Amino acid sequence: MQLLKDRILKDGRAVNEDILRVDTFINHQVDPYLMRECAKDFAEHFKDSGITKIATIESSGIAPALLTAVEMELPLVFFKKQPSKVLNDDLYQTMVTSFTKGTNYELTLSRKVIDSSDHVLIIDDFLANGEAATGAIRLVRMAHATVAGLGVLIEKSFQPGRSKLTEAGIETYSLARIASMSEGKINFLED
Amino acid sequence: MQLLKDRILKDGRAVNEDILRVDTFINHQVDPYLMRECAKDFAEHFKDSGITKIATIESSGIAPALLTAVEMELPLVFFKKQPSKVLNDDLYQTMVTSFTKGTNYELTLSRKVIDSSDHVLIIDDFLANGEAATGAIRLVRMAHATVAGLGVLIEKSFQPGRSKLTEAGIETYSLARIASMSEGKINFLED
Repeated sequence: MQLLKDRILKDGRAVNEDILRVDTFINHQVDPYLMRECAKDFAEHFKDSGITKIATIESSGIAPALLTAVEMELPLVFFKKQPSKVLNDDLYQTMVTSFTKGTNYELTLSRKVIDSSDHVLIIDDFLANGEAATGAIRLVRMAHATVAGLGVLIEKSFQPGRSKLTEAGIETYSLARIASMSEGKINFLED
Repeated sequence: MQLLKDRILKDGRAVNEDILRVDTFINHQVDPYLMRECAKDFAEHFKDSGITKIATIESSGIAPALLTAVEMELPLVFFKKQPSKVLNDDLYQTMVTSFTKGTNYELTLSRKVIDSSDHVLIIDDFLANGEAATGAIRLVRMAHATVAGLGVLIEKSFQPGRSKLTEAGIETYSLARIASMSEGKINFLED
């Protein structure tokens, strides 16, 4: 998506080969116009997929996922992060390792909000190692629902997230795919 | 706001005198239609206040705040929670105590996204003791910006949040004000 790629080149900051800062327009300050255009793109791409719910992971996935939910007139569910496992029969839980932050957390979903009748589109801001996305997919499947696909704003295509998802049978749709980065330099994959 | 109050009575669950669960339509699963109507109400109420940015606290404030930002065509900033103080000259930080959860966290704001030219509307899902809201106000003021007011979906009017904000000179606008609760019963303040 050209609008997003242009904005990443203008306001994004490649700190090194791994870390891209987008905190002035995506994950600390949010540009609602840009986010809405991204949401329209997701909605258009997945419009014939029979989706019943949009899901995401708190916090920085909420903005693109909510606007996609508005666009598609569907409920949004955001999976919550907890530092450790809580004993609660009302919750599905799965552990996720964040390589970026070097931490583990439990991703949780209430049994009340997703069930076997749901076909779920997962939206997130970044796809890198795919740990958060595969955790979200596990939760959807624990709820006996099916996954329609994954929509992400920015894919670090030099990391293994996409291939893990392909192996798991999940379609990934990314609005900007980064082939490589170095300090001050960002290279996108050709469309 | 009648639509929100009706929904709280229909799908909210008063667990005891203090805890109201709204996780099927506000803070785990989100109803985008309801949230958009709430956002329109905030936008209408604050339309002549000269607001330059919307701010909120991750995670459950993001949905109403983002849709208010869309409605008012303004950027959204979400203040991030961190478990402990990080040494970083690029951040404003302030400690917040959550009485509801019995925890402390550092609320953080990058110096890049709010400055002395900003007049900030803070939006959140709940107002109870006012600890999160007064933390958000401290951060805005640390950034030398001014606070236009606080918009909340649900105010627990039997707790001291509103009076703390009034003392601090902040206008609070709440879409649903709860006078009292007990297990299975919710009483709103009269408009």
